[in-house]
Amino acid sequence: MSQKPWEHAKSSGSEADPVATRFVASLDVDQRLYPHDIAGSIAHATMLHHVGLLTVNELDTITTGLNAIKSEIDEQGESWPGWKVELEDVHMCIEAALIEKIGEPGRRLHTGRSRNDQVALDMKLWIDQSIAVLLKKTESLAAAFAELADRCGEVIMPSYTHMQRAQPIVAGGEALAWASCFNRCGKRFWQLDDRLENPLGCGAIAGSSLPLDRQFSASMCDDINAIAPSSMIATASRDATLDMAYGLSMVSMWLSRWAEQWIIYNSTEFSFITLGDAYTTGSSMMPQKRNPDMLELIRGKTGQVYGSLVALLTMCKGLTIGYNRDLQEDKRHLFSAY
Amino acid sequence: MSQKPWEHAKSSGSEADPVATRFVASLDVDQRLYPHDIAGSIAHATMLHHVGLLTVNELDTITTGLNAIKSEIDEQGESWPGWKVELEDVHMCIEAALIEKIGEPGRRLHTGRSRNDQVALDMKLWIDQSIAVLLKKTESLAAAFAELADRCGEVIMPSYTHMQRAQPIVAGGEALAWASCFNRCGKRFWQLDDRLENPLGCGAIAGSSLPLDRQFSASMCDDINAIAPSSMIATASRDATLDMAYGLSMVSMWLSRWAEQWIIYNSTEFSFITLGDAYTTGSSMMPQKRNPDMLELIRGKTGQVYGSLVALLTMCKGLTIGYNRDLQEDKRHLFSAY
Amino acid sequence: MSQKPWEHAKSSGSEADPVATRFVASLDVDQRLYPHDIAGSIAHATMLHHVGLLTVNELDTITTGLNAIKSEIDEQGESWPGWKVELEDVHMCIEAALIEKIGEPGRRLHTGRSRNDQVALDMKLWIDQSIAVLLKKTESLAAAFAELADRCGEVIMPSYTHMQRAQPIVAGGEALAWASCFNRCGKRFWQLDDRLENPLGCGAIAGSSLPLDRQFSASMCDDINAIAPSSMIATASRDATLDMAYGLSMVSMWLSRWAEQWIIYNSTEFSFITLGDAYTTGSSMMPQKRNPDMLELIRGKTGQVYGSLVALLTMCKGLTIGYNRDLQEDKRHLFSAY
Amino acid sequence: MSQKPWEHAKSSGSEADPVATRFVASLDVDQRLYPHDIAGSIAHATMLHHVGLLTVNELDTITTGLNAIKSEIDEQGESWPGWKVELEDVHMCIEAALIEKIGEPGRRLHTGRSRNDQVALDMKLWIDQSIAVLLKKTESLAAAFAELADRCGEVIMPSYTHMQRAQPIVAGGEALAWASCFNRCGKRFWQLDDRLENPLGCGAIAGSSLPLDRQFSASMCDDINAIAPSSMIATASRDATLDMAYGLSMVSMWLSRWAEQWIIYNSTEFSFITLGDAYTTGSSMMPQKRNPDMLELIRGKTGQVYGSLVALLTMCKGLTIGYNRDLQEDKRHLFSAY
Repeated sequence: MSQKPWEHAKSSGSEADPVATRFVASLDVDQRLYPHDIAGSIAHATMLHHVGLLTVNELDTITTGLNAIKSEIDEQGESWPGWKVELEDVHMCIEAALIEKIGEPGRRLHTGRSRNDQVALDMKLWIDQSIAVLLKKTESLAAAFAELADRCGEVIMPSYTHMQRAQPIVAGGEALAWASCFNRCGKRFWQLDDRLENPLGCGAIAGSSLPLDRQFSASMCDDINAIAPSSMIATASRDATLDMAYGLSMVSMWLSRWAEQWIIYNSTEFSFITLGDAYTTGSSMMPQKRNPDMLELIRGKTGQVYGSLVALLTMCKGLTIGYNRDLQEDKRHLFSAY
Repeated sequence: MSQKPWEHAKSSGSEADPVATRFVASLDVDQRLYPHDIAGSIAHATMLHHVGLLTVNELDTITTGLNAIKSEIDEQGESWPGWKVELEDVHMCIEAALIEKIGEPGRRLHTGRSRNDQVALDMKLWIDQSIAVLLKKTESLAAAFAELADRCGEVIMPSYTHMQRAQPIVAGGEALAWASCFNRCGKRFWQLDDRLENPLGCGAIAGSSLPLDRQFSASMCDDINAIAPSSMIATASRDATLDMAYGLSMVSMWLSRWAEQWIIYNSTEFSFITLGDAYTTGSSMMPQKRNPDMLELIRGKTGQVYGSLVALLTMCKGLTIGYNRDLQEDKRHLFSAY
Repeated sequence: MSQKPWEHAKSSGSEADPVATRFVASLDVDQRLYPHDIAGSIAHATMLHHVGLLTVNELDTITTGLNAIKSEIDEQGESWPGWKVELEDVHMCIEAALIEKIGEPGRRLHTGRSRNDQVALDMKLWIDQSIAVLLKKTESLAAAFAELADRCGEVIMPSYTHMQRAQPIVAGGEALAWASCFNRCGKRFWQLDDRLENPLGCGAIAGSSLPLDRQFSASMCDDINAIAPSSMIATASRDATLDMAYGLSMVSMWLSRWAEQWIIYNSTEFSFITLGDAYTTGSSMMPQKRNPDMLELIRGKTGQVYGSLVALLTMCKGLTIGYNRDLQEDKRHLFSAY
Repeated sequence: MSQKPWEHAKSSGSEADPVATRFVASLDVDQRLYPHDIAGSIAHATMLHHVGLLTVNELDTITTGLNAIKSEIDEQGESWPGWKVELEDVHMCIEAALIEKIGEPGRRLHTGRSRNDQVALDMKLWIDQSIAVLLKKTESLAAAFAELADRCGEVIMPSYTHMQRAQPIVAGGEALAWASCFNRCGKRFWQLDDRLENPLGCGAIAGSSLPLDRQFSASMCDDINAIAPSSMIATASRDATLDMAYGLSMVSMWLSRWAEQWIIYNSTEFSFITLGDAYTTGSSMMPQKRNPDMLELIRGKTGQVYGSLVALLTMCKGLTIGYNRDLQEDKRHLFSAY
């Protein structure tokens, strides 16, 4: 069934243009949010039961149905038959599949919510999870530099300012310098995580007249307990996405500086380091070369991350409050930066 | 066969790390350049024959082989068996397939050239072709506004400055205003096309000691006759890519202004226009709405195009002269902007 | 007199807040446009006479008055008493000074025009003049590199790709490479100049019901003969400003690459060049150093130019058509990039 | 006396080129750091005394001298005779003035430090102070919206998504929505402040062999107690500057959204609000208009702030570690964003 759940209400006679359908669809980008979408739906359903809007049977049926869908997608990935581009996005695909599977209770899950707060929650759950990954990665990067400092720490080398030899240092000092940068990047992510707010219950823009218990549903999304203070902003804001894109830009900036430094150290003239064959490539015309392509690409990819940050800042500039479809583009940019 | 053509020369013992191989590969992005890569190779081979570096038989074998490969890819697309990620890019995949198909003459095609000038040429051929498409699109957009002016030209409406009613105008005047913007965008592309220079014969960085006839090979790439004046810059520059990303940013900027205007005109308060059902979407909580999602996405996608321009500018900032692998990222950004 | 020329029409009783007045004023930035503002006014007045809206005496009085004001500002600069922040901008200051000097005919100069087309013309005249300067500068930069190629052309040095030694070249080849970049930048400016269109007669947004002769007034602004096809776009567009900011970004990008290259060549490890004492600075802790500060600043200032381009793109994103005060900011960014 | 304190060590014969001197000078931009420069110098001198590198008399003389200089600049501002462009920057001007005033002890103040750690500290003290100001401003902005909510809280109005009427809300809800945005912006600044680290004692790049007590000197800079873990990064990093530019970009983004909303509400078609005459301007051709110029400029200035962030990100991209003169540009961009 590919009718959108709210479709019946549409004054019909005029079919959606297929070009338009493809143009507005975000499924290729937001598919990956499915575990968060399902977790958020379970939190919402449990709260609906808690305030008496779902019976215990309905809750069970919904939870079982959603978990089954999750297992299906875990296994089948992009070939899951529920992905239908005419349903536009991950929320609609999962909801339609649930209705097909369990019938009427599936429709009642949408009580008191909207795709606008749903996507806002999904993204925050994704960001929360991704920050956990990033914290591990920045830590292990810092640890790798610390280990390097241990191994070659006592080698004396010049330090440079203005690319001119300055005071002599031990190589370990420079390795620890890089470690400290990535530690600081980690702290920035950790603080961002602390700012996340839970949009569940915000609805399309103005909350709901139903007796929803927002504190209860937030408490079910383990790391995102704080309730968003304004339903209007919770659905219209992309602050967490921007914060993360900025945090990634800073990581990327430091990686570009480190890559530049080592590319120069890898030159014949400096010869401070020699990159292993496994991490260099040759040249079609000059096969003796050991090109530091990976470092160059790390440096070059800074552009992509900065570009994503600018894309998000541009997207948000001058938008009226309330959800606008422009915001759908946020995921593309953050995923690309990540 | 997945050995890179220049691989035999590599001091071996150490295999490339598979993570490294995947990281440096650009095949997913540059695959689409295959028709240009093949056209450039045929131009190069014809010139090699012209100066006596290939026999007529070798030229025939090469040309026939390349045309066969083109037909294969035309048909099989991404499932063409010649696409091998360990060969990194479109140039290597096609060259390896050619050698496999025709043997030794295939190896001789690489005489006097490098992937550095090859990719520079491929991109210019792609840009030249894409500009032709863009010129048609900006023209037909301008024509659509002109037609709108014909249809509703005499309707009187207020003009606005500062979002405040200013002098009364006819609606046709506003439609023609948008037409004039997109015409101007076309002129910008047209001038860019005029600046393209042919890098064939530039080699990796410093040309070649062989008696190549660069004027001859350039004359075979119909629209790109001018010879790049410096082999160093021809391989190190991404000016045409940047110029095109800027041209697209300007198109996108004007589209964002037009979208904003019509979103406001589509509001209940203004009610100057009503968008057809086929081009609006509904709301899950408020099904009576006719949301101008397509216009909003057009406005939102401005971020993506601006982001690509910033990505390219960032990528090029402070790069040393000569090809650096950073530049490989250019295609990703331009294709995304396009 | 510091009453704005149109002030009498304002429903009074409520004075402008002084903070508001300072906030909206652009005088500190647009002062430098005075010669263009006066040249544009003379072109406009001559046209008004041509179509019979000014007598020959009025035209004479206006022209003499404007020329006198120009001489005063030429001499007194920022201390010219006509600069009054409460008049907001260069147009109002000059018009008020003219009215004070010659009385009623001064008021008639504003017939059929608006500050919106006035500032659009002023900027285009400024851009036209600045491009002439930039063309000379890019030419002399290219010539300096050509001269360098003459002087040290035959020295053999390695070329570099991936910062690894590649084919040997003569130093003159690298110098000429830089020359070719700046020549290409010049061509970009030259084409931009060719796209300039004359907004005289466009008024605030919708032209004028008076029998203005736009071709006549355009012909008086020597290099900007083409008439803007849409009065709405002529006042709402900042295309020429953006084009120039982009052209400057490209110059700046190439300067950053050259600076990076020479900073590396200036290192002890490379020692390809030695910068003269007059162009290096010392260090407070390590006085023996010869830091290439000027090259570093050239590289660092790339940020400023890119930033101006992004500022302008952001400013224009999603603006409704017709003049909006946001556009006033354009001058600040272009002047900063320039 | 305009000889730089380290000048005597320069191999002379060759005078600095006056163009070069003007080009590298940053005095026009960094002058405003003088109170922080003096506070940092006093903290450093006190530490030098604490570890036995200055006698109590020397410390007294230095402190008295610096306080006297501070009073002079407080009074005379830009006309203070100590500002000499040939001394390049605020640190050199103050140090030279101190030496002139108190002689030898003034020279000893530079023991164990460099302009590289000095400017890093000055900027952090400035940022710390500016964040205090920004926290007050975001709070009072939020308070103003809260007050508005009190005044007009019960008025019923439509909310909007996609610029289409959505659920009805009370006007107070929208006012509080804006308040919550600026509160969140405040939290971001507050966390940034928490990340500031003290660079005193880091020297030019590699600290000092003298027995400096970094914890002691940090404890004298009240809010910036944490010691920077790497002297190399402390002088090479501009993280705090970038963090603040990002925080300002987010404030600016929200201001642009609010401005856009109210500009639309101020249109005749919406007429939800009417801006006071004191905060609007008229039009030279249509004097009846009430243009929301201030809101438009607030929206337009978003470009400037985004531009500053991009400028800083660009400046840092690919820089080698250790101080490079590029970094001098950071202040220009942050001050402009601020």
